[in-house]
Amino acid sequence: MAGPRSQEYSRLRGMVEEALPGYLSPAACGAPDPLRKAMEYSLMAGGKRVRPVLLLSAGKAVGGREEELLPFACAVEFVHTYSLIHDDLPAMDDDDFRRGKPTSHKVFGEGMAVLAGDALLTEAFRIMAESEAAAAQPGRAVRAIADLARSAGAEGMVGGQQMDLSSVAGTADASTVDEIELRKTAALLASCARMGGILGGGTQGQVDALGDFGTQLGLLFQVTDDILDETASFEEMGKGTAKDRARGKWTYPVAYGLPAANARAEALGREALDALAAFGGEADTLRGLVRMVQDRRS
Amino acid sequence: MAGPRSQEYSRLRGMVEEALPGYLSPAACGAPDPLRKAMEYSLMAGGKRVRPVLLLSAGKAVGGREEELLPFACAVEFVHTYSLIHDDLPAMDDDDFRRGKPTSHKVFGEGMAVLAGDALLTEAFRIMAESEAAAAQPGRAVRAIADLARSAGAEGMVGGQQMDLSSVAGTADASTVDEIELRKTAALLASCARMGGILGGGTQGQVDALGDFGTQLGLLFQVTDDILDETASFEEMGKGTAKDRARGKWTYPVAYGLPAANARAEALGREALDALAAFGGEADTLRGLVRMVQDRRS
Repeated sequence: MAGPRSQEYSRLRGMVEEALPGYLSPAACGAPDPLRKAMEYSLMAGGKRVRPVLLLSAGKAVGGREEELLPFACAVEFVHTYSLIHDDLPAMDDDDFRRGKPTSHKVFGEGMAVLAGDALLTEAFRIMAESEAAAAQPGRAVRAIADLARSAGAEGMVGGQQMDLSSVAGTADASTVDEIELRKTAALLASCARMGGILGGGTQGQVDALGDFGTQLGLLFQVTDDILDETASFEEMGKGTAKDRARGKWTYPVAYGLPAANARAEALGREALDALAAFGGEADTLRGLVRMVQDRRS
Repeated sequence: MAGPRSQEYSRLRGMVEEALPGYLSPAACGAPDPLRKAMEYSLMAGGKRVRPVLLLSAGKAVGGREEELLPFACAVEFVHTYSLIHDDLPAMDDDDFRRGKPTSHKVFGEGMAVLAGDALLTEAFRIMAESEAAAAQPGRAVRAIADLARSAGAEGMVGGQQMDLSSVAGTADASTVDEIELRKTAALLASCARMGGILGGGTQGQVDALGDFGTQLGLLFQVTDDILDETASFEEMGKGTAKDRARGKWTYPVAYGLPAANARAEALGREALDALAAFGGEADTLRGLVRMVQDRRS
């Protein structure tokens, strides 16, 4: 991806990158030093910041202000980071590397990794509830908080991870895997898009459309992840690859092959763009995210 | 404890006991069944519900309505339950029994126990943000949510658990242990009391006084817990006892002996009551909590 859309992504990502450490500073967060260090290690490990950029872009598409959206954008990255730390635990996916670095429990021990995740999740809600937007527009803030909690919780991400965990032992069919992908990945991305819409003051119709966009983008994200797991090397991904197949996990490319998986990615991208039909140029950054996810190599 | 104060405690506890399962019902919470089962196992394991009763009593002391306070009261019990599940994990305190029943990871496995805790924590924020009070009084709701997140997160409970975890290996002195107790136990109880005050529409002075009361009650709770760990049997406590001494942990009774610990409990109780000096009979249920904690046998 190149051109103005990509530049806008880089700008928003840079804004998030710059804001994130502030929420862990001693002035903002009273963590004991070892805990702060573990939280920071994973939070600042060089993620692509797709979720916060999605929230910011969705909010701007309905006229929201960046400085009001930013704390919520950072909060969803906190939530995403906690989920990675816990997913990597030995009792879960048992991964030793993430983004080219040893995972949290490899560096700090399992107990600390559990706590770093717990703290990141809890602090996400602190950041949102203590934000200026929460004081100025508390009605919007509680709606956004409720949306994130539902999408990250038992109905969404945690529920999906539980189903995924159980699916290793059992035999998951295609419809179960669809549900896992919806819960585990798409729910949080859909929530990011809706949160932007809510906080930016969008109509219910706009919020719903943004949610549809986020769902399709999330499924696209997941299928490209599964494709990369099959095709990419450790160096490209910064983590072990071809693990899904080795573990006997059902994924789209494993079950139907790469050409079918690529076709599905194209279709999901089109559906994502269709969800934005009612928006004009103000949603171009969102449209650019589709191409970026389709083209990603890591 | 007997008499009207005790009856009021039982009534409020019963109200919480009755409301809790509803928040996990399929209509309210879209958890996959195995996850729901694990969440329910720990949530409905017969806790004393001190934190929700504290929140309800504090809210009523400033004129709050029970039905508006109840979702927040249940949410703090969700947070408390998550913390117990994670604290019991093998990588943390490694406990096999809790309230006379096998701990979550012994029944459901470690991965599921981590996820059940994650889900309970996240659902707590969903319950608060989706409550009727949050729609009617969003400004109060975000303040209460922010207060709970700060007290349960890196500055409070999670931070305290991390210091506690690290203190097993090292040698913790009395002032470090004071800080651990403040963070790990007292912060959440203080938050419950403040949340009641905020949601009930109390003045800042009332909210602060309730917070002071909660802090003293929390420290009292911790010192009686340490005393019980020294003196009670497994049958009484429903979990292993004398573990602190065996693990070389610094606790007040281990360091200074039981008579000194009992004297400290008396002093903390007096300080808790002093914090309520500006309140009249409307705070009698709160006052009753002091005696109840001092007299507890499990």
